[in-house]
Amino acid sequence: MARVRPLSGYPEWTPSQRIVESEVLSSISEVFSLHGFGEIQTRAVEPLDRLAGKSDAAKEIYTLGRLNAEEGEEAKLGLHFDLTVPFARYVEEFQNDIAFPFRRYQIQKVWRGERPQEGRFREFYQADIDVVARETLPAHFETEVAVVMARALGALPLPGVTMRVNNRQLVEGFYRGVGIEDVADALRSVDKLDKIGPDGVRAELTAKGVSETAADAVLELARISSPDGGFAAAVEDLWASTTTVADIEGPQEQLKAGIASLVELVEGVNEAVPGTAVADLRIARGLDYYTGSVYETFLEGHEDLGSICSGGRYDSLVAGGGFPGVGMSIGVSRLVSRMVGSGLVEASRAVPSAVVVAVNDEDSRGVSARIADRLRARGIACEVAPKAAKFGKQIQFADKRGIPFVWFPAADGTDGEVKDIRSGEQVPADADAWEPPAADARPSIVRP
Amino acid sequence: MARVRPLSGYPEWTPSQRIVESEVLSSISEVFSLHGFGEIQTRAVEPLDRLAGKSDAAKEIYTLGRLNAEEGEEAKLGLHFDLTVPFARYVEEFQNDIAFPFRRYQIQKVWRGERPQEGRFREFYQADIDVVARETLPAHFETEVAVVMARALGALPLPGVTMRVNNRQLVEGFYRGVGIEDVADALRSVDKLDKIGPDGVRAELTAKGVSETAADAVLELARISSPDGGFAAAVEDLWASTTTVADIEGPQEQLKAGIASLVELVEGVNEAVPGTAVADLRIARGLDYYTGSVYETFLEGHEDLGSICSGGRYDSLVAGGGFPGVGMSIGVSRLVSRMVGSGLVEASRAVPSAVVVAVNDEDSRGVSARIADRLRARGIACEVAPKAAKFGKQIQFADKRGIPFVWFPAADGTDGEVKDIRSGEQVPADADAWEPPAADARPSIVRP
Repeated sequence: MARVRPLSGYPEWTPSQRIVESEVLSSISEVFSLHGFGEIQTRAVEPLDRLAGKSDAAKEIYTLGRLNAEEGEEAKLGLHFDLTVPFARYVEEFQNDIAFPFRRYQIQKVWRGERPQEGRFREFYQADIDVVARETLPAHFETEVAVVMARALGALPLPGVTMRVNNRQLVEGFYRGVGIEDVADALRSVDKLDKIGPDGVRAELTAKGVSETAADAVLELARISSPDGGFAAAVEDLWASTTTVADIEGPQEQLKAGIASLVELVEGVNEAVPGTAVADLRIARGLDYYTGSVYETFLEGHEDLGSICSGGRYDSLVAGGGFPGVGMSIGVSRLVSRMVGSGLVEASRAVPSAVVVAVNDEDSRGVSARIADRLRARGIACEVAPKAAKFGKQIQFADKRGIPFVWFPAADGTDGEVKDIRSGEQVPADADAWEPPAADARPSIVRP
Repeated sequence: MARVRPLSGYPEWTPSQRIVESEVLSSISEVFSLHGFGEIQTRAVEPLDRLAGKSDAAKEIYTLGRLNAEEGEEAKLGLHFDLTVPFARYVEEFQNDIAFPFRRYQIQKVWRGERPQEGRFREFYQADIDVVARETLPAHFETEVAVVMARALGALPLPGVTMRVNNRQLVEGFYRGVGIEDVADALRSVDKLDKIGPDGVRAELTAKGVSETAADAVLELARISSPDGGFAAAVEDLWASTTTVADIEGPQEQLKAGIASLVELVEGVNEAVPGTAVADLRIARGLDYYTGSVYETFLEGHEDLGSICSGGRYDSLVAGGGFPGVGMSIGVSRLVSRMVGSGLVEASRAVPSAVVVAVNDEDSRGVSARIADRLRARGIACEVAPKAAKFGKQIQFADKRGIPFVWFPAADGTDGEVKDIRSGEQVPADADAWEPPAADARPSIVRP
């Protein structure tokens, strides 16, 4: 058998790092739950025809075969590459078990056969929320999902985040107003602004048949941003000076609706979570199916990670139409990888135990076990020392794991004393009453 | 695209059923943590040569391919079919990050390409604990893992469980004493006792060259059981009347050591969790690598499920030797499937929210949102009504989800009143002080 070694693109954590990931996941879940989002999980596999629907995703899909497959047996299933495709299928399949509007969260691993690089994995956790309606989705949910995500990220021990938001109606109205017919295609070019710069985008647009004036207007629009409704006046000025099409009424209405919606979004998010949202008209999002608000979120000082939480509003969750909704997704593994990799945070200790109950001799192991059980009955995680070694060794055992307390049962079978091995303080204690300080009760995320 | 339908062998739960599964998983995790077991997770994939090591597992392995694979490209990775193979690899890979003895738990999905049938899935959750040492593993851990599992199962809203335990040293000593040379092979036949009955086992054994006397002795041994150390005398009597080999000393020592170990196990478990363990000398466990205690666990009234929690002690976790340990694994999905399928339990409601904050009119949605945030600040999960519909409709919205309380903000912007929609009782309330009854705070598992 080959020597063990990590598999590129499949991150794994030490027990201590896993505590960080696990705390991140439960903190996020708790914020989602507090806001009334219920959890679902879907199977890891979907039929290939469903996964491969979006053509540009096809190259990333892992298919499932059987080790003892017969000659010519073709794969029919693949691993999901995001949580949206399985969620859409789930909503369709379980629609009679669901009360709409359906507020769901979903935290699972997804798999993509991409070339691994820093912060890009082949197996990683996503944490998604969506609100999906059966018929009409009120606009206020576009603000709410952004607020919930801002709070979920804000509850983590991270630098600040900035949520950059835009609106597809606004963009589409504007693009149509300057004479661009294939808005989705033009957006795909604007989405590359960071990669190829304004000149690159202009060249792509004109190559696609967009006029120079329109390309300039589009790039000018992408320069507008404001942390409040201030962007609206700038957009209207630009619109007044650049619209060229004859039949302006449709695009103009669309633009106005988009502006109103974006003002509501940026102001609503900042009212609930001050200083979080910026209307940024360059935010495009690659996916065609967004039809309203779109979101990208950046971690201050770690903008190189790209967006850590993205999403948008869509008219139809399912391919056949229907189920309008709005959703956002956190790339959890990318975030955790940066958190533990850059020394931003670490676990306060590597194990759940707050106490090691020492063992005087193997014959009295039962005495130690009963003390441990009395501590556990009050929610205190602990373990009994593996060997009745010298006390110095048993303290070393605790120290090596970062366990702050060692309990020494008395030789006469009474409860004895508990020692804080950091301060050396040792006091008589009753196993039915003693409590560790709250900060020591369970491992937690700390900034080193 | 094909109509959506369930995939055979890939269970999925409604939002309400997922609450049951999720509560089961967190209850189990909490018991593990209280006993000082730390969590790890491993990637879903392993190199195929590592997975296929155990030959009889090979037929169940799912391999991973790429949708756009090139002609002749061979699969090198597969999905793990249990948590032991990846754990062994993890311990080898991370041995310098781990403090031994290593108490770990791991709850993840595993995949097996078996023919699906009731209670047998292709994708399912396992929950494993193991204690692994670097050099020597003290025997008391064989009792401890059984106690932890008994408590984990005991904390669930289930009928009672019986843990049937045996010891490989005892069995091996006895088998050798009656002249059986290939003990592992004989055990594989005895493991079929439930399927093919004593006559079938006798026929298999004699076909393998085991003498009729020895086969009878083996079947006699399998009839012995006791909820305490009482089995020991029965085994010794049987041993005295049936041993046939000339050189009896080795087998006899092995038998005695096994008896002592099994007495300690059954009595130790029953001391900690009375009425749980039964020494049952027919318990064989299919896997060759167990070398001491072996465990199977049955749910009262649901014995048809087979063992819901099994495991044993082993000398070497890794193929090259080394890392002795003891572990047990709960088949969580099988258990949850029975719990939700047979009506044993259900979720108290389908969503996390305890309260719906009603909306008087869309202009005052912000008032309702601020009340909701003040409830959330004290850990009360809630959501704001999606529409400013008539109050009857908003109550219906809560009722449909099983949400027990509706909060009505006053028209003057003060906090207003909260209604228990089950009793109809409605009282003035302060959003900074009001609490739902503890039983209503979060959804829970209830017996219908």
